[in-house]
Amino acid sequence: MRLKLGMVGGGDGAFIGGVHRMAARLDNRWTLVAGAFSGDAARSQAFGRSLGLANDRCYGDWRQMAQAEVRRPDRIDAVAIVTPNHLHHAPAKAFLEAGVAVICDKPLTTTLADALDLAEAVKRAGAPFVLTHNYSGYAMVRQMRSMIADGLLGALRVVQAEYAQDWLASDLTGNKQADWRGDPARAGAGGALGDIATHAYHLATFVTGATAETVSAETSRFVPGRRLDDDVQIGLRWAGGARGQLWASQVAIGVANGLRLRLYGEKAALEWSQEEPDLLRFTRLGEAPQLLRRGGPGLSSAAQAATRIPAGHPEGYLEGFAQIYADAADLIGAHRQGRPLPASMLPGVSDGVDGVRFIEAAVASAAADGRWVALNEGAR
Amino acid sequence: MRLKLGMVGGGDGAFIGGVHRMAARLDNRWTLVAGAFSGDAARSQAFGRSLGLANDRCYGDWRQMAQAEVRRPDRIDAVAIVTPNHLHHAPAKAFLEAGVAVICDKPLTTTLADALDLAEAVKRAGAPFVLTHNYSGYAMVRQMRSMIADGLLGALRVVQAEYAQDWLASDLTGNKQADWRGDPARAGAGGALGDIATHAYHLATFVTGATAETVSAETSRFVPGRRLDDDVQIGLRWAGGARGQLWASQVAIGVANGLRLRLYGEKAALEWSQEEPDLLRFTRLGEAPQLLRRGGPGLSSAAQAATRIPAGHPEGYLEGFAQIYADAADLIGAHRQGRPLPASMLPGVSDGVDGVRFIEAAVASAAADGRWVALNEGAR
Amino acid sequence: MRLKLGMVGGGDGAFIGGVHRMAARLDNRWTLVAGAFSGDAARSQAFGRSLGLANDRCYGDWRQMAQAEVRRPDRIDAVAIVTPNHLHHAPAKAFLEAGVAVICDKPLTTTLADALDLAEAVKRAGAPFVLTHNYSGYAMVRQMRSMIADGLLGALRVVQAEYAQDWLASDLTGNKQADWRGDPARAGAGGALGDIATHAYHLATFVTGATAETVSAETSRFVPGRRLDDDVQIGLRWAGGARGQLWASQVAIGVANGLRLRLYGEKAALEWSQEEPDLLRFTRLGEAPQLLRRGGPGLSSAAQAATRIPAGHPEGYLEGFAQIYADAADLIGAHRQGRPLPASMLPGVSDGVDGVRFIEAAVASAAADGRWVALNEGAR
Amino acid sequence: MRLKLGMVGGGDGAFIGGVHRMAARLDNRWTLVAGAFSGDAARSQAFGRSLGLANDRCYGDWRQMAQAEVRRPDRIDAVAIVTPNHLHHAPAKAFLEAGVAVICDKPLTTTLADALDLAEAVKRAGAPFVLTHNYSGYAMVRQMRSMIADGLLGALRVVQAEYAQDWLASDLTGNKQADWRGDPARAGAGGALGDIATHAYHLATFVTGATAETVSAETSRFVPGRRLDDDVQIGLRWAGGARGQLWASQVAIGVANGLRLRLYGEKAALEWSQEEPDLLRFTRLGEAPQLLRRGGPGLSSAAQAATRIPAGHPEGYLEGFAQIYADAADLIGAHRQGRPLPASMLPGVSDGVDGVRFIEAAVASAAADGRWVALNEGAR
Repeated sequence: MRLKLGMVGGGDGAFIGGVHRMAARLDNRWTLVAGAFSGDAARSQAFGRSLGLANDRCYGDWRQMAQAEVRRPDRIDAVAIVTPNHLHHAPAKAFLEAGVAVICDKPLTTTLADALDLAEAVKRAGAPFVLTHNYSGYAMVRQMRSMIADGLLGALRVVQAEYAQDWLASDLTGNKQADWRGDPARAGAGGALGDIATHAYHLATFVTGATAETVSAETSRFVPGRRLDDDVQIGLRWAGGARGQLWASQVAIGVANGLRLRLYGEKAALEWSQEEPDLLRFTRLGEAPQLLRRGGPGLSSAAQAATRIPAGHPEGYLEGFAQIYADAADLIGAHRQGRPLPASMLPGVSDGVDGVRFIEAAVASAAADGRWVALNEGAR
Repeated sequence: MRLKLGMVGGGDGAFIGGVHRMAARLDNRWTLVAGAFSGDAARSQAFGRSLGLANDRCYGDWRQMAQAEVRRPDRIDAVAIVTPNHLHHAPAKAFLEAGVAVICDKPLTTTLADALDLAEAVKRAGAPFVLTHNYSGYAMVRQMRSMIADGLLGALRVVQAEYAQDWLASDLTGNKQADWRGDPARAGAGGALGDIATHAYHLATFVTGATAETVSAETSRFVPGRRLDDDVQIGLRWAGGARGQLWASQVAIGVANGLRLRLYGEKAALEWSQEEPDLLRFTRLGEAPQLLRRGGPGLSSAAQAATRIPAGHPEGYLEGFAQIYADAADLIGAHRQGRPLPASMLPGVSDGVDGVRFIEAAVASAAADGRWVALNEGAR
Repeated sequence: MRLKLGMVGGGDGAFIGGVHRMAARLDNRWTLVAGAFSGDAARSQAFGRSLGLANDRCYGDWRQMAQAEVRRPDRIDAVAIVTPNHLHHAPAKAFLEAGVAVICDKPLTTTLADALDLAEAVKRAGAPFVLTHNYSGYAMVRQMRSMIADGLLGALRVVQAEYAQDWLASDLTGNKQADWRGDPARAGAGGALGDIATHAYHLATFVTGATAETVSAETSRFVPGRRLDDDVQIGLRWAGGARGQLWASQVAIGVANGLRLRLYGEKAALEWSQEEPDLLRFTRLGEAPQLLRRGGPGLSSAAQAATRIPAGHPEGYLEGFAQIYADAADLIGAHRQGRPLPASMLPGVSDGVDGVRFIEAAVASAAADGRWVALNEGAR
Repeated sequence: MRLKLGMVGGGDGAFIGGVHRMAARLDNRWTLVAGAFSGDAARSQAFGRSLGLANDRCYGDWRQMAQAEVRRPDRIDAVAIVTPNHLHHAPAKAFLEAGVAVICDKPLTTTLADALDLAEAVKRAGAPFVLTHNYSGYAMVRQMRSMIADGLLGALRVVQAEYAQDWLASDLTGNKQADWRGDPARAGAGGALGDIATHAYHLATFVTGATAETVSAETSRFVPGRRLDDDVQIGLRWAGGARGQLWASQVAIGVANGLRLRLYGEKAALEWSQEEPDLLRFTRLGEAPQLLRRGGPGLSSAAQAATRIPAGHPEGYLEGFAQIYADAADLIGAHRQGRPLPASMLPGVSDGVDGVRFIEAAVASAAADGRWVALNEGAR
């Protein structure tokens, strides 16, 4: 079943909007039919036309889009919200209230209050809500999740997560992507913390099935003039007794997009790096490490289901992102047709709430000289 | 400009047809609107419908498709031919003669006579013809080509190419993909030779701008019962004086899709491996090796133009393949609109002829105990 | 000049004693001539004979050895102390007081009081004291140090150090090496902390020239029954403003000896891993990473001086350790002959005191729920 | 038992002499006591003194050394011959005839006639003869040999060997090491062929237990003025039916010492690279690759016996070379004491003869435009 997609944000010069569109196209499950690509109606239309959209479905205002779309017989099945962080909550809520499923970029919102409010809205609406923690779409990430769920690691001991980049190692004032990410009003309380540490945190929770109980954080702003952190170093105490560090940095010269997860249990260990996403290193206690590969032998059905092409034909970032859209089509399609919803690994609004709790706890800890702060402390 | 694509072959159970469709979709330049997916009209229609195609554009016969499509006002702009090797020549020629641009899988044909005949047909038709030596779509492959064209390596000395896989390491009789590739009537005179050695050979020619003058080949059939080679070991003497080896194997256990090129010149060297396509190792004489990365610093405009997302967000096989389709859209779109054709790096029919010459020369050499055979010897 | 070496500890079944002996032999600067290999005189003699030593120089007591050796005309020039941690202080002090230079294994002592006392003893004796933080002997570690001293990284921002192993991932009670390392009476207050985290910490200080001001530590004992930590996760605030994490673990299944240092400055970055010690990744802001290699182009004189064989002929752990012994021969030889002491990068007693401060601060922080503890706090 | 070693060659400025001395020292099995380090007696003495040798055992002439040493009660147990290739045969023969065991550098001789003559001399003398194909001393090379002997790979299909370096990528006239290696009078008929291709060939034979039946060779001299090959590309037909390529080059910019072996059998495969000698990749048909590591789990007794320190503490080139000396001490010690000789994996004179046959066959093939030449063809 092919579904119809609308988009809020993602116009000229945006990065992630284009990614969402490629991801939505790849598996032929979605057609982009509508968008509020810009607050300027003319620009929105010009951009929409460049994508082959009909003029009357290119809106200058997402509120208007929500209202107009739900009245159409060929209405969108879901809307992708790809705006800066501060513009997630309101449009997401508006579409949910109009009965439209939402596919929203991360972090969920800029405040925990907004996050909880949105979670309520999702609950009321009963419509699917998908948060694009896209790294959970990688086949080998799902392989890790399966292996841990199957008990192959035994009790988890150590969770080492990191997400390093270098694109903000110098002052990029004037760069559109850098500007909003460095502006508390648009990004929220976290810089690298919200932009990438939340990915690393979500990845660890997605794979292990556990959540952190408390965090101890040190945040830095290394580039002069920066208003939000560009480097965060966090200790985590995980439910179940595991301990771990999480490092996220946007000043790590020479590291392009270094999201990496290493998990050590009592019986085995897993190591995965996003820059070689098709590979996974698995070591049982007392045995030689094995190199599992997407498409290769020894994989779980979950990993196989997230695979398009044979081993050694690399799948990359867009394929991982596309998996989120493919799964979302299964979920939202079933919902639209009133069928039972399929089991799904998709990150949803509760992952988003957890992510915002993680951000707020880390900010609070850093402000308190690294005191261990509970993730649900801000919510009390 | 978005173009309309037809497809010959690529129905249920085919591998490469699905790849072509994903590649065509990714960059939003093509819409698949027609197809002869099967020789059985009902199956073709069922498959086409599953892709969202109109019933009347799902054909059971590619001849009929060629005739019907060119009469339509919304006719296809190009046809993708994704059938087994022996079914490239006839449909390609038919569509060309109908005035339809062709995007054809490799190797071009199963005989040199057919290849030359098709080259004539391309010339007569004046329509674009693209051969999907897809590895030439990778950004870092184009980076190598730019660097060599810019003289950074100086005179080439050594060209080491290899393409190893393991999927045919045991007898796969009954596997549809294996069966036609192992059948001389459908695959032509080469097994691994036609299927993958031609990719490695094309890659080397694409990057270096040179062609081999003579080859000395040793072909083996290691798996009992196999009728075509599953391992070929070739020496090449390149125009310009470089020397090199080419190894292609489908019995190399533990190697998934190991296409690799290493080039040593008098001033510098390049090393690239398809399994990590975003990386390129470049070493100048007397200096430390540099690791160039797609999306990173120091890249040519050609590499930048074949890039979708930032460094460290891996692009893979499908993106490289999509680049061929994006470039083909530029080329074929210009042709359809009567505009001047853009400069293009796309492999075309002459690359296909060279590939078949390479196959025939290697087969002849192997039959003559490794005698050095000129690539154009068979054509005399 | 060849020097004469004595050894305390390192008899049958010891690991590090054999390493010291191989390291001392490799560069032909030392001859082992005496030893107190065991507290049992007969066993000490049997072991010494197996090494080719004269009977009368194999002692059952290191005190006796110190007294006897200094009276000989062919006395040892230095003594290597390779006993468990709790047996460093007393013999080191005794030999120093007898006027014998000391080459001592790390960590320096099991308490800060002992460390400071030994530092006083070194000062009084005026004899060279070398602490075998052997990883500082690697050529590429010295290369990093040179590059940072030369300002190539600019102001340091992030220091990520780790030292992971897996040999203690399960209960090894009864294993001699594991037993003393897990016994507070013999190992001191730290398990992994003293055994390997101190190496990682020293490496970072050696390379950067900086020291940590405060640490925040989380220590774990994952294997049931263990009395000392087998995993430590530490935050560090470095003098000069850099921030960093240090992880040391002996339960990291699949990691053999993963000492790794990553340094990010405002102008460039360095990444090094002990398991491939000949390689060093260096990236300048805005440029492609370079792979420096021991013996290859672009190296400092310090790195060249710590190189025996050409690039690509791997030097390993024993060569790095041997460099400590070679440098110690230069230093101790000069001292013995009354010549001016050469400039030296050798770790000494003050590094040892810093290491013990680091252990004590980490233990104190862990006991105080991760409070930031100053490294010199325990000394006040 | 410690043995006494003499040395012919290896004076000031030599490379491999120093390597032999470090290798002999490392495991404490040999003491260097005599040498003819130079044809000039004064220089030989000066150099020997710098090593701590007695004056009367530093000779200006190896003939004189052979005669003098065997008359001494403390005579050498073996002589290491580390001269350029043309000076292997005569001193080796002289020492053998004097009853002294020989440890000789490779290739054995510069002509097959000399090689066969030396083999006769070994036979007549009955003394051990060791050829330092040092790469056979690596633990993981021996691991490969064990695994193949145990049948883990099944019938061998493909043997890919290569040995690339870059140190001769430009004209090094005046460099002592380069000069003799490029001089047919001193090096023999092969440049890269004799210097490094023979290592790669020996490695393949050592590991597989097979020998090549015929070779087809292409040799090049890429650097102007060079008189011997600096790049060789060889096809091999192995006894037992395997096929393979061997590439050796000294103009491969960016490759330091790239000796690499890849073996594909019907049941499994092995891949090993000298630049990371502690690692071995092993893949069984249909399973994920395993990364075996020296000192780690799953190793043969042969690999364990060639291991000094734990996994992850890298052993390198000198340790591999030292293994040859350690094994030679076992062999030669037993011979000297009249004990039964231990089983040994040491390369001997027959390996040397095979290597010279390999060189001569390759030269003959290259001269005959790549005709397949039998390795024993020159011997008929």
